[in-house]
Amino acid sequence: MNIDTLIDARWVIPVNPDGAALEHHSVAIHEGRIHDILPTGQAEKYQAVTRHTLDTHALIPGLINAHTHASMNLLRGLADDLPLMTWLNEHIWPAEQKWVNEDFVADGTRLAVAEMLRGGVTCFNDMYFYPDVTARVCADAGMRAVVGMIMIDFPSAWAGNSEEYLHRGLEVHDHYRTHPLITTAFAPHAPYSVSDGPLENIRTLADELGVQIHIHLHETRDEIQHSLGEYSVRPMQRLKDLGLLSPSLIAVHMTQLEDDELELFAESGAHVVHCPESNLKLASGFCPVARLQNSGINVALGTDSAASNNDLDMFSEMHTAALLAKGVAGDASALPAAAALRMATYNGALALGIAEETGSLENGKYADITAVDLGTLESQPIYHPISQLVYASSRNMVTDVWVGGRQVVKNREMTTLDDNRILSDSTLWQEKLRENHQGSCV
Amino acid sequence: MNIDTLIDARWVIPVNPDGAALEHHSVAIHEGRIHDILPTGQAEKYQAVTRHTLDTHALIPGLINAHTHASMNLLRGLADDLPLMTWLNEHIWPAEQKWVNEDFVADGTRLAVAEMLRGGVTCFNDMYFYPDVTARVCADAGMRAVVGMIMIDFPSAWAGNSEEYLHRGLEVHDHYRTHPLITTAFAPHAPYSVSDGPLENIRTLADELGVQIHIHLHETRDEIQHSLGEYSVRPMQRLKDLGLLSPSLIAVHMTQLEDDELELFAESGAHVVHCPESNLKLASGFCPVARLQNSGINVALGTDSAASNNDLDMFSEMHTAALLAKGVAGDASALPAAAALRMATYNGALALGIAEETGSLENGKYADITAVDLGTLESQPIYHPISQLVYASSRNMVTDVWVGGRQVVKNREMTTLDDNRILSDSTLWQEKLRENHQGSCV
Repeated sequence: MNIDTLIDARWVIPVNPDGAALEHHSVAIHEGRIHDILPTGQAEKYQAVTRHTLDTHALIPGLINAHTHASMNLLRGLADDLPLMTWLNEHIWPAEQKWVNEDFVADGTRLAVAEMLRGGVTCFNDMYFYPDVTARVCADAGMRAVVGMIMIDFPSAWAGNSEEYLHRGLEVHDHYRTHPLITTAFAPHAPYSVSDGPLENIRTLADELGVQIHIHLHETRDEIQHSLGEYSVRPMQRLKDLGLLSPSLIAVHMTQLEDDELELFAESGAHVVHCPESNLKLASGFCPVARLQNSGINVALGTDSAASNNDLDMFSEMHTAALLAKGVAGDASALPAAAALRMATYNGALALGIAEETGSLENGKYADITAVDLGTLESQPIYHPISQLVYASSRNMVTDVWVGGRQVVKNREMTTLDDNRILSDSTLWQEKLRENHQGSCV
Repeated sequence: MNIDTLIDARWVIPVNPDGAALEHHSVAIHEGRIHDILPTGQAEKYQAVTRHTLDTHALIPGLINAHTHASMNLLRGLADDLPLMTWLNEHIWPAEQKWVNEDFVADGTRLAVAEMLRGGVTCFNDMYFYPDVTARVCADAGMRAVVGMIMIDFPSAWAGNSEEYLHRGLEVHDHYRTHPLITTAFAPHAPYSVSDGPLENIRTLADELGVQIHIHLHETRDEIQHSLGEYSVRPMQRLKDLGLLSPSLIAVHMTQLEDDELELFAESGAHVVHCPESNLKLASGFCPVARLQNSGINVALGTDSAASNNDLDMFSEMHTAALLAKGVAGDASALPAAAALRMATYNGALALGIAEETGSLENGKYADITAVDLGTLESQPIYHPISQLVYASSRNMVTDVWVGGRQVVKNREMTTLDDNRILSDSTLWQEKLRENHQGSCV
């Protein structure tokens, strides 16, 4: 049979079934989707336009960054090591108010997409202003994305009030409704920044349109206190009362949980996105990942923004998650390697509502594939390749990446984005922000 | 003036003074030591045999891995995700008993040294059998090392009883007494594996010889319980009673601390080596780094072995330490970037008793220098280079490394070690261990 692409690898790690590491296997790709996975020795049945032989590599599903704010890459390292509210009030929010416009979002997103593709991430879930711009950049770059139809109580350059936020968001939804790479989700920012009316609208519309709802939830103690003060209930209870606790919900962070809340959440079928590096860096708290998973809750993985990480490195995030879950649970068998890899791939697809299309290497799914070279001395010796990927790998080992069967990274070089342009655009923003930002920069 | 080497860099980050990031500066090296640090514009006063222009790079002190077991690189990923005692009793100790000999230590150390040099580590503090072999491999590779004169109650291939452990260790000490790269420390394994007699001998000899004492201390709850059962006191109190709580002590892990113990330790002048990734992976507990530092205790950084990490990546360890300290302290201003970099460099030199020779970029010290390329898009934009190094860098950004003025890594290639030989040696050990190791390997 004639096919578009055949990739021979040392290991194919499909994530489904869990823990499988198929030695000397090949992936056959046709018309953007995985057609077959089989021993390389039997692959002669396929004649491929392009054949790749990746002798020392593992093929894994492209990683899914289930929560970020891509444009904030332009604020990477702007301010660190500060108490959360000082960081937000005196550094991040003033910079955003001053600088966020279409160009900021275009350039910031492009930088973030480049970083993510080179690091083996083939899909991300975004929440920021100008989702129309984010979507366009991703579509052009060949990156899969769920762009957030952002909702927030205060006006911004993108929208003046909740009607306008909704209207402009729905325009993006309609525009990309049949696009193979771009989907949308409602993205009400957080319980403390979105009032009841807009949340109720979003619940109704999310049901009608069949999209997910992406929100920061139970991230900090302050958020809990604010909700008790304003609404007399904790945020999760408020969302439940508004009808938002359902399998449509993507709840990010979830570091502040009481036992009954864990049960409530588990019954609802809602999803969690765990952002360990952000939670640690901002001292938000510890998400009880092992307990969430043991209760049957789907837990995905995200980097949050580059302003509180400070990169979009999903290999590092996966490593951190696997380590931190053990420390937090007091159990060295918590979140084993295969489960950590699944968190960074399939669980993200589940949370984003796209698990039938991506998140694992299975026949019929999109060919969203990352190749990792395990041939250097940093990876030796190899007893268990999945362990190596989680506990001893880094994103610079990524050599080739496909999204929907299109090779977007070839031999560590991007095929759809221009390094040099991205570097010079970043430098321009760096000069602008450095001039104007209070506090010392070097 | 004629000098050996001049390195021009975008930033020189000396660590002393704290937080300095000198733009467009050069480091002048002569006869293995730092001769001068000055603005590149003034560097014409020096005629260098070799001049390096590193336009987008930061020069930092070579990182100091203050606690590892280098040879255990050959056990990387052999077994993971298991409760600690199962992991030790059923996997690690049987493998060590079967395989550890001079060749294991030579090949394992060589693999570890290669990984560390390529990752910008110029000095490490080791504890393992056959320190004579470790020392030789390091001397040949041009790697700075403190090798442990290991002491443990049970016999091994290297020594049959405590007299023999001491005797063989002292031979290594004597052999390398004037070596520019190799120093020694006593390395009694842990409170539960070394009895009082040998510890008392070590205290006396350490004073006489002016060397440090390197020990695992308060790593787990089980260790505390064992000590209470055997000796009726907690391990730190036992060491105090034996006279070991002093500035000579390098205490590794320290996750189990009561308030009075923190004060006791602070008064003693002893040092801590923090190993966050190992502590998390083995669910040992959380070291209260911010509290230790606030009490004036010197805290250095280490990876522990590649069997519980699973790499010797000090950039990752530094990032994890900076994040975890904030989460554990509940304070986003804890362990700021400059302090994390200092932990990975100067504090290690202090702990190892070599702070007059290395650990910072200062005139007169050994030229142990690591160059990090901050020019790729993953590092953009740059507002604060020290923040970038800690929160947004990875070891693959290391391009060039000098130890004692000798360039051991040039353009990402090692100059003193052979990649291919190391790869093939590792593969031989991988095949041997895989055949014989119970449980599934792929």
